[in-house]
Amino acid sequence: MPKVLTGPVEIIGAGLLGTSIALALRKAGIEVWLSDINSEHVRTASGLGAGIARPAQKRPQLAVVAVPPAHLAQSIVEALEDGAYVTDVGSVKAGPLAAVADQVEERALARYVGSHPMAGNERSGPLAATAALFEGRPWAITQHVHADPMAVALVEDLVAICGGEPVRMTPVEHDRTVARTSHLPHLLAVLVAGQLTDAEPSHLVLSGQGVRDVTRVAAGDPDLYGQILLANAPVVGEVLREVRAELDRAMVALDAGDGDVLDEILTRGNEGRSSLLIKHGVALDEVGPLFVLVPDGPGELARLLRDVGESGVNLEDLRIDHDPARPVGLVELTIATSAIETLATSLNERGWTTHR
Amino acid sequence: MPKVLTGPVEIIGAGLLGTSIALALRKAGIEVWLSDINSEHVRTASGLGAGIARPAQKRPQLAVVAVPPAHLAQSIVEALEDGAYVTDVGSVKAGPLAAVADQVEERALARYVGSHPMAGNERSGPLAATAALFEGRPWAITQHVHADPMAVALVEDLVAICGGEPVRMTPVEHDRTVARTSHLPHLLAVLVAGQLTDAEPSHLVLSGQGVRDVTRVAAGDPDLYGQILLANAPVVGEVLREVRAELDRAMVALDAGDGDVLDEILTRGNEGRSSLLIKHGVALDEVGPLFVLVPDGPGELARLLRDVGESGVNLEDLRIDHDPARPVGLVELTIATSAIETLATSLNERGWTTHR
Repeated sequence: MPKVLTGPVEIIGAGLLGTSIALALRKAGIEVWLSDINSEHVRTASGLGAGIARPAQKRPQLAVVAVPPAHLAQSIVEALEDGAYVTDVGSVKAGPLAAVADQVEERALARYVGSHPMAGNERSGPLAATAALFEGRPWAITQHVHADPMAVALVEDLVAICGGEPVRMTPVEHDRTVARTSHLPHLLAVLVAGQLTDAEPSHLVLSGQGVRDVTRVAAGDPDLYGQILLANAPVVGEVLREVRAELDRAMVALDAGDGDVLDEILTRGNEGRSSLLIKHGVALDEVGPLFVLVPDGPGELARLLRDVGESGVNLEDLRIDHDPARPVGLVELTIATSAIETLATSLNERGWTTHR
Repeated sequence: MPKVLTGPVEIIGAGLLGTSIALALRKAGIEVWLSDINSEHVRTASGLGAGIARPAQKRPQLAVVAVPPAHLAQSIVEALEDGAYVTDVGSVKAGPLAAVADQVEERALARYVGSHPMAGNERSGPLAATAALFEGRPWAITQHVHADPMAVALVEDLVAICGGEPVRMTPVEHDRTVARTSHLPHLLAVLVAGQLTDAEPSHLVLSGQGVRDVTRVAAGDPDLYGQILLANAPVVGEVLREVRAELDRAMVALDAGDGDVLDEILTRGNEGRSSLLIKHGVALDEVGPLFVLVPDGPGELARLLRDVGESGVNLEDLRIDHDPARPVGLVELTIATSAIETLATSLNERGWTTHR
């Protein structure tokens, strides 16, 4: 599989992402050196078999920068000055590239190609690392116009070794996309969650699955997300201005009782949601839900899934509905629409209570 | 279980909620009459065993109004003029109550007590109905100051027969709560989803589980949610003004590179999210995730759940991560923190790849 990436690879920042990449490289037999301002991270990662502390006076073939957003550009510059090819796994691409371009010559800049694997933002630290973290995940490769083809090839090999699915786009395209698919959803989820602090706690029992879904990402680390939002501030600001205009439109429509404008806004939401519901090229509107009541105890869900498995139906998704007040669980199975009737009959015969 | 509710009960509006209530009442042996402006709904519900078409010249003991938000007040007024005790299952309480109070005498108003079961907003129609729909679900009972104790007792019996968990609050408290737990999350999810229509479709492969979670409710019926938002417009408007002020603060902070303000906003989001994470009084921070790689095929998930079940660990939640580009599935198991190590070891021994 690897063509040009033979190692050694230096991992700069032995956190969750860096150590996971190191483990995948080691699994492929490639020599890995570890660096981190926190020497305990290096010891932990090394103990997990992720490589050895970087030896002095030696230069890696490729350096992978996996440090927090605020330190990205400086670490990339230092790695380039060291003479190696360099990539990074930061979640914002254009700003760090511009900062690096300001500080190094074009010849050095050519050895840098940024990338961004879609994995692992919720946990942190080397102990959470695994070689399987990137298996099948999209991994953006964002080469700039002056990139050396060798640098691109090395990053492509890295993604392949980690089991990622390469997605090619420019740094600007990347940042515009993640502003909408990650930074905006995060900030709005935070605003929704923040409003809950003003509610009477005992009344929050009325919360359903909807608000739980919307606010899940709001549990993320404020420090990390603050850095990410600031790193992409100009693009996020642009998207927020558009959202603010829509919010104002909705507020005016609510005040005026204007159902047509609300309908237009809500319908556009339907369209945006549909654009996400594609899996392996199959539109998810070809699947639908079947609800099953499940007693809350060990083994019950396994018994249900065994019964689903024996029916030969492939489960697209499964959700356990968490209502604080409920003694029994409601499980939502998502399956091909054509199989719902069959599965319902089969489960009913085995004693389950189902509904659509 | 029932003390005063002996029937007959008239269900006005034989959609998902109305027909589900009817089925639960029939199961308890109570006579049910069905009314709907769409006579086909009455035939369908009747065919499901949910009761009979309302006989002429007869009066029910209790009428349950289960019509769309825009028609609630008028249907409640007509049912009160008919002489029965009346409840409704609408998702907004203060506005309809005020409209009803404007149109009937205080003596008639005393026979009305509003309610709101937390169930069933995503599906619709009598065919989706089930007697189990409300099993263990919170069900708000929102009596007004002039309510007849008999009307309250009848609604309490109704909730008990349906298996719901009664939650008592005033109509205004109810509407303030759902503005934050339902209407605001819905509208902001819609704005996030709407922005995705401006993204290059091929770049949406970078979407992760976060944006999928945030936008799930944006798939809801625009007509229904438009009516709900308008019915609670004054309260939703108030909450939106607060959110808009926070959004402006975030935008200014982003422009100014002010990490402290962002941190304050993001930290408040953490707090709001935590206030939701309670189940049967157990704080969900006592549980944590274990990730398992699962091949995408029939029976694989069942095999995993069987193995989990045999370990004796009680699953709090399970999520299947849908990355469009991924050939294998990543399943997130949520279990008691104390059991994560044990379960990981047990699953690894059975050949599963896990990580934390």
